[in-house]
Amino acid sequence: MREKFTYEPITGAEFDRQKALYEPFTQSVRELLDATIRTEVDEETVREAHAAIEAVTARLRAKQKDGPYGVRYAVDGRGQAWGNPVIGVRNPMAPPLVITRGDDGICRSEFTLGAAYEGPPAHVHGGICALVLDHLLGEAASSGNKPTFTGTITCRYLRGTPLGELRAEAYIERVEGVKTFARGFIADAEGTTVEADGVFILPVWAREVG
Amino acid sequence: MREKFTYEPITGAEFDRQKALYEPFTQSVRELLDATIRTEVDEETVREAHAAIEAVTARLRAKQKDGPYGVRYAVDGRGQAWGNPVIGVRNPMAPPLVITRGDDGICRSEFTLGAAYEGPPAHVHGGICALVLDHLLGEAASSGNKPTFTGTITCRYLRGTPLGELRAEAYIERVEGVKTFARGFIADAEGTTVEADGVFILPVWAREVG
Repeated sequence: MREKFTYEPITGAEFDRQKALYEPFTQSVRELLDATIRTEVDEETVREAHAAIEAVTARLRAKQKDGPYGVRYAVDGRGQAWGNPVIGVRNPMAPPLVITRGDDGICRSEFTLGAAYEGPPAHVHGGICALVLDHLLGEAASSGNKPTFTGTITCRYLRGTPLGELRAEAYIERVEGVKTFARGFIADAEGTTVEADGVFILPVWAREVG
Repeated sequence: MREKFTYEPITGAEFDRQKALYEPFTQSVRELLDATIRTEVDEETVREAHAAIEAVTARLRAKQKDGPYGVRYAVDGRGQAWGNPVIGVRNPMAPPLVITRGDDGICRSEFTLGAAYEGPPAHVHGGICALVLDHLLGEAASSGNKPTFTGTITCRYLRGTPLGELRAEAYIERVEGVKTFARGFIADAEGTTVEADGVFILPVWAREVG
């Protein structure tokens, strides 16, 4: 992509208001998603749930954005990717990951993956591990508010990643011109389950602004 | 994982009954998920939707599986991973991909990715591309009903993948003992956007049964 993203600036108070409204609402849909996979209620109850959900969706769709969410709001010059499938406050698919950056420059996150992320029985789908690592390495590579895009990423699966409480870390290994090399891992209580390294590229428009 | 998966066998008629019930139900939650991200209705309507969703979830949770879905049912000896985040008939997070295997051994899928899969504005999250490719390459590598697990996967991003109609293919490049090397890509109407290659490993228990 060559176009620069445009953000609609909002105040901190408006950001807080939206977060207080949408965060618990999205969490309720996240719970529904989990229940949809795990429910064993009778056929009649499933049909009633189906009808109730369609009614809610119709009300929500009465006024909605034409396309996807985008990166629409900014506080302190930073875009809020609330539709993002990894960190999005408004995306029920997102765990969502809360990522912190330490003084050591390492990006860290502790998170829980349940039924919705299952590949092999009781284990995280390998592609979900790749999704989490792609996002976390990209975040690590985008330090200093300069966005980067994945050029290449490699994931090495050391063993199955059990569903449940997990943690992940990522950091910049080195920078060569517009290429940032990042590394990271996912771990359970016993240690690392998946390792990743990736090359992240600074987009053309961000190079121009130095 | 060293344990062999166990499947609960069901008849074709029971399979059809469950699919007819759960497929449209799950699709309704998938639509809700999209509406949750895109809605711009007023605060009062969001709060009412929140309450309605919590009531539905409570009814669905009245009887539910303790843990994740697993691979519980089998028709013709093949497990049905209905909770799977890529192909799962009961997972609202899954697009879901419908994968066909041609006489040429190539696995193909045509699918649409909307707001829930967005990374950069109007484009698919790079990690979602990795999720799709990990699954499709794994499916290609698991021909002959022998399951395999991802050992390593590398994704190369040629350009941004736009949200919308996409297709993907994967095939076995070569087999060396317990390692199967698979390759594949995602493409939009203009051509390939992401390429992948991976090494998939036959689990120990599957080796023993020849």
